[in-house]
Amino acid sequence: MRKIAILTSGGDAPGMNNAVRAVVKQAHANGLEAFLVYEGYKGLYNNNLVSAKDIDVDSYLNQGGTFIYSARFPEFKNPEIRQVAANNLKERGIEALVVVGGDGSYKGAQLLHEIGVKTIGLPGTIDNDIASSDYTIGYDTALNTITEAIDKIRDTAKSHQRIMIVEVMGNMCGDLALYSGLATGAEIIATSQYLLSEEQIINQAVELTKQKGRRSVIIVVSEKCYKIDDLAKKVQAATGWDTRSNPLNHIQRGGNPTAQERILATLMGMKAVEYLLAGKSGLAIGIINNDIVGVPILEALSMENKAKDKAVERAIKFNKLNQA
Amino acid sequence: MRKIAILTSGGDAPGMNNAVRAVVKQAHANGLEAFLVYEGYKGLYNNNLVSAKDIDVDSYLNQGGTFIYSARFPEFKNPEIRQVAANNLKERGIEALVVVGGDGSYKGAQLLHEIGVKTIGLPGTIDNDIASSDYTIGYDTALNTITEAIDKIRDTAKSHQRIMIVEVMGNMCGDLALYSGLATGAEIIATSQYLLSEEQIINQAVELTKQKGRRSVIIVVSEKCYKIDDLAKKVQAATGWDTRSNPLNHIQRGGNPTAQERILATLMGMKAVEYLLAGKSGLAIGIINNDIVGVPILEALSMENKAKDKAVERAIKFNKLNQA
Amino acid sequence: MRKIAILTSGGDAPGMNNAVRAVVKQAHANGLEAFLVYEGYKGLYNNNLVSAKDIDVDSYLNQGGTFIYSARFPEFKNPEIRQVAANNLKERGIEALVVVGGDGSYKGAQLLHEIGVKTIGLPGTIDNDIASSDYTIGYDTALNTITEAIDKIRDTAKSHQRIMIVEVMGNMCGDLALYSGLATGAEIIATSQYLLSEEQIINQAVELTKQKGRRSVIIVVSEKCYKIDDLAKKVQAATGWDTRSNPLNHIQRGGNPTAQERILATLMGMKAVEYLLAGKSGLAIGIINNDIVGVPILEALSMENKAKDKAVERAIKFNKLNQA
Amino acid sequence: MRKIAILTSGGDAPGMNNAVRAVVKQAHANGLEAFLVYEGYKGLYNNNLVSAKDIDVDSYLNQGGTFIYSARFPEFKNPEIRQVAANNLKERGIEALVVVGGDGSYKGAQLLHEIGVKTIGLPGTIDNDIASSDYTIGYDTALNTITEAIDKIRDTAKSHQRIMIVEVMGNMCGDLALYSGLATGAEIIATSQYLLSEEQIINQAVELTKQKGRRSVIIVVSEKCYKIDDLAKKVQAATGWDTRSNPLNHIQRGGNPTAQERILATLMGMKAVEYLLAGKSGLAIGIINNDIVGVPILEALSMENKAKDKAVERAIKFNKLNQA
Repeated sequence: MRKIAILTSGGDAPGMNNAVRAVVKQAHANGLEAFLVYEGYKGLYNNNLVSAKDIDVDSYLNQGGTFIYSARFPEFKNPEIRQVAANNLKERGIEALVVVGGDGSYKGAQLLHEIGVKTIGLPGTIDNDIASSDYTIGYDTALNTITEAIDKIRDTAKSHQRIMIVEVMGNMCGDLALYSGLATGAEIIATSQYLLSEEQIINQAVELTKQKGRRSVIIVVSEKCYKIDDLAKKVQAATGWDTRSNPLNHIQRGGNPTAQERILATLMGMKAVEYLLAGKSGLAIGIINNDIVGVPILEALSMENKAKDKAVERAIKFNKLNQA
Repeated sequence: MRKIAILTSGGDAPGMNNAVRAVVKQAHANGLEAFLVYEGYKGLYNNNLVSAKDIDVDSYLNQGGTFIYSARFPEFKNPEIRQVAANNLKERGIEALVVVGGDGSYKGAQLLHEIGVKTIGLPGTIDNDIASSDYTIGYDTALNTITEAIDKIRDTAKSHQRIMIVEVMGNMCGDLALYSGLATGAEIIATSQYLLSEEQIINQAVELTKQKGRRSVIIVVSEKCYKIDDLAKKVQAATGWDTRSNPLNHIQRGGNPTAQERILATLMGMKAVEYLLAGKSGLAIGIINNDIVGVPILEALSMENKAKDKAVERAIKFNKLNQA
Repeated sequence: MRKIAILTSGGDAPGMNNAVRAVVKQAHANGLEAFLVYEGYKGLYNNNLVSAKDIDVDSYLNQGGTFIYSARFPEFKNPEIRQVAANNLKERGIEALVVVGGDGSYKGAQLLHEIGVKTIGLPGTIDNDIASSDYTIGYDTALNTITEAIDKIRDTAKSHQRIMIVEVMGNMCGDLALYSGLATGAEIIATSQYLLSEEQIINQAVELTKQKGRRSVIIVVSEKCYKIDDLAKKVQAATGWDTRSNPLNHIQRGGNPTAQERILATLMGMKAVEYLLAGKSGLAIGIINNDIVGVPILEALSMENKAKDKAVERAIKFNKLNQA
Repeated sequence: MRKIAILTSGGDAPGMNNAVRAVVKQAHANGLEAFLVYEGYKGLYNNNLVSAKDIDVDSYLNQGGTFIYSARFPEFKNPEIRQVAANNLKERGIEALVVVGGDGSYKGAQLLHEIGVKTIGLPGTIDNDIASSDYTIGYDTALNTITEAIDKIRDTAKSHQRIMIVEVMGNMCGDLALYSGLATGAEIIATSQYLLSEEQIINQAVELTKQKGRRSVIIVVSEKCYKIDDLAKKVQAATGWDTRSNPLNHIQRGGNPTAQERILATLMGMKAVEYLLAGKSGLAIGIINNDIVGVPILEALSMENKAKDKAVERAIKFNKLNQA
């Protein structure tokens, strides 16, 4: 192996730049040439690649987003399109490709693997929704961003004795809601895995507002679970407290990566190159019990998120704690 | 003068705690007793006051919100209600009241002044919409919060080649939009003072997306000026670039005060006590050309915001710069 | 069991407030009364306890330090002193004590356990030097604080083409140096577990300064391993580059807890109460492979830090990566 | 005028990148070509210039340091060296140079002005020690960095009942010490302008430690005024409280620019180009009473810092307040 490439795909996530940097530097440290593919699979198809040898990849290590960009590219489902992409690599003598992204990106990596491109997938998404890794690249930063946002919202809630509904991302994984709720003492947490009915939320809110000395209630919910503007009106009507809805939107995705983010992404990027040097392909890298490991991408894609029960159990516990 | 009181009113703003702390400590340093009024004018009417002598006001100096709370209290327009409030002070031997808040709060302070309570007003609001002060308590922190939020949004915009519309607070004052737009290099800035038509915004966006190498466009707008969800759709249709709307909501109001915020609030709080010790009343404190000064509240309330022309001129310049 | 108490001991660490909050709220949620012991074992001896029932423990959840304070108290080695402490608990009907701190604090907890006080230890220290837990309360925040500090130092190093030696805490555990070094791309990392000779450091620095285009070199070292002022002079003499020493000192210990810190501390605090409700005592709580578990304190104290080999191996790898 | 250049000189300061960006973009917006000079006057002499037309100056707007670098270059005092520098500009058809830096950098700009290069100086330094401007580029960010550092140090001081001596930069200007002291409630502030004797500091510390309920004392001092390690020992001996010295070192210079920093630097950069377009030269730009203005560099260099009296008066007041 003498040449490898890397791309980022799917929603951008803090830490992607660290993964790219680690792959490039680990390649260089082992005498390989590394290529950057701009704009994900779209760029691979469009032959938008450059050698990283003159690029200061260190300069992005504390930056959010992905400096090699991402893009939607549904056309990659087409085998002919994929063959063009594979040929682009082949013509430059690039034998392997590291892909940082979510499940959709893994599928592309698997398909390339099947037509002879050595591929390694890295879990890059803030949503922590990849079953083959305890944590994804981007999750820790997003969790801190959300936590800091809710802290700010709490300031206003307490000052004015209000209820605030905060909607966070997660793409059907409740972790961002669950753990930001724990970190901020949110009195009501309802996640993609632990759905409360509107009635339950309203009833709990009513109970909370009756507590002696209480000045605020924070309700954290996963995206796509509630119509939060409507819910806010109903909660206000039932409690008599001013209630506001706060979707956090796109501030959750960007931002400079935390220390743990950089470390996780760097360890994973290093491991990807080690796997390639050992002749492996078709693997999805994850952190499992603090170890950086690889499982076949096919297996990774078919894993069920086993933590569902734990997520429900914890949500119940956290709500009980925060309402005490 | 032996006893004074302080309250916060209107929307909470970072730095209010520093103003309260400064009034309390400056009072103590001068042998006065200071009282905290909880929940603004409502608490004044409800006789919700405590002496600050055993309260660790220092512990709030790096905290957002207002630890003595705020509340809506339209009833204060009623003269009888106000008389009750004044009596509550009188019965404790409290001769003076410092009020931290916006224009509405100033009106209350003026009315109390007219029935014999010595009052001093401090400009507390993130909106920077008080004509008698170059800067208000809360503005600098909110400006930084918004700036950091837009930086995060830029990360995603660049990664995915998107247009992002960001809506910020300001209550008919465009400063938060104008200066956060300058600080973040927002390509299109439209404020309460410098309104662009939807067509202008769309046209400018189209031109921008044609620029060579451009990866993102940020559009910052003042609240209440546009239906940003609709606008996003129109911009997307015209440019062909994915466009998202991001109202920043309540993350803008809370948060730990910046250094300048703490300094401004502290200097104003100190000055308030100095004025009271000098027998003054009915004054609104402001910072004008770096000096902490006081003008009669009545005058402050009737001042027009003279900076309107400058705001328009600057908006034009900033848009030109950021689009270059 | 009807009453329990909690204290913090040893060096303060971010997250201690979350542990205290979690113990108190979990106690309340289960019908127990919780007492706060001020100033650690010293306060226990001095009978400096209050019931937490009227204390707003939520208000400290985003604050650094420990709001129930810590203190040195070597006198606790004296059995008579300990008996007084135990009696203070007994007289109030308090059966159990949760102790948050480092190894020294665990010893005290063990000794109290041996004279009939039910005790549970929580690992509270920024140093990550407690063998019975993968992570300690305080570590994640300190790691981020250090990382952000080094990022700032890098700005100046790059601007002026300098070498910066940064000394970080760790108390004979190299993790803070090792992982902040990885997170910041530090070109040379030397830790308590992976000591480089001065000569090695100097030689590596010389090689680095010869690299084409290099603008900066960051050297991260564990505290107590080098005389960094002297080392800076030697490095400067050998490389010809301006070299500065930067001990980070006490900014590393304080600061608002990160999301993960709050989560870890809260989970541990909750678990402590669960153990006590189940009749357990003499246990040290840790997080092992993402599970919150307890081991006998005696065992915890005798564990060797098995990660030593891994620490050396990783340090070698990280240096190789960052120098590539 | 068709071509202009810009360089940064002296100690790096956050906001320099915004000044460079503003000059470049304002030049482009007005049909000029802008050149970046790398490494300050040294790069000017070495002919290290590139056109900014293909450089994404926007990407540095939220970054600390100076991306066009700085360097010491005492050789610039030599007229022959300066003539080479001037010729380098002339040969490319560059008529004007914007210099961002401190007093030393201004001198260079003046000397170039005298040999026919049109020059404009911008005040770039964290020290706020330039008499011709109320604020310098870099000051606001450094003030926030220091404030946040002291907040962290306060956490540990309170937790352990300690005295902390914090030494901050300023280069004979006390503003960073004075205002960070006010922002953090530092009980003792001693600055380059307001020197306290060691005896005064010790005596005040002794008085403070006698106050009921006090848990911490922060002493902020300007650099180069005290031997803080020695002072810490003396304070500890006199008070009986553990006392630690904390020089903040180089974390003060770097870091991402605050909103106000970016705004100030951008306004100044824009103004520089406007002056050049109007045919001006030999001017130092400053912000005076919120207006961006220019004065002859020679005048700027001979101005005395008139705020000395105010600095002393304020230091006395702030100490009184914070000790109350």
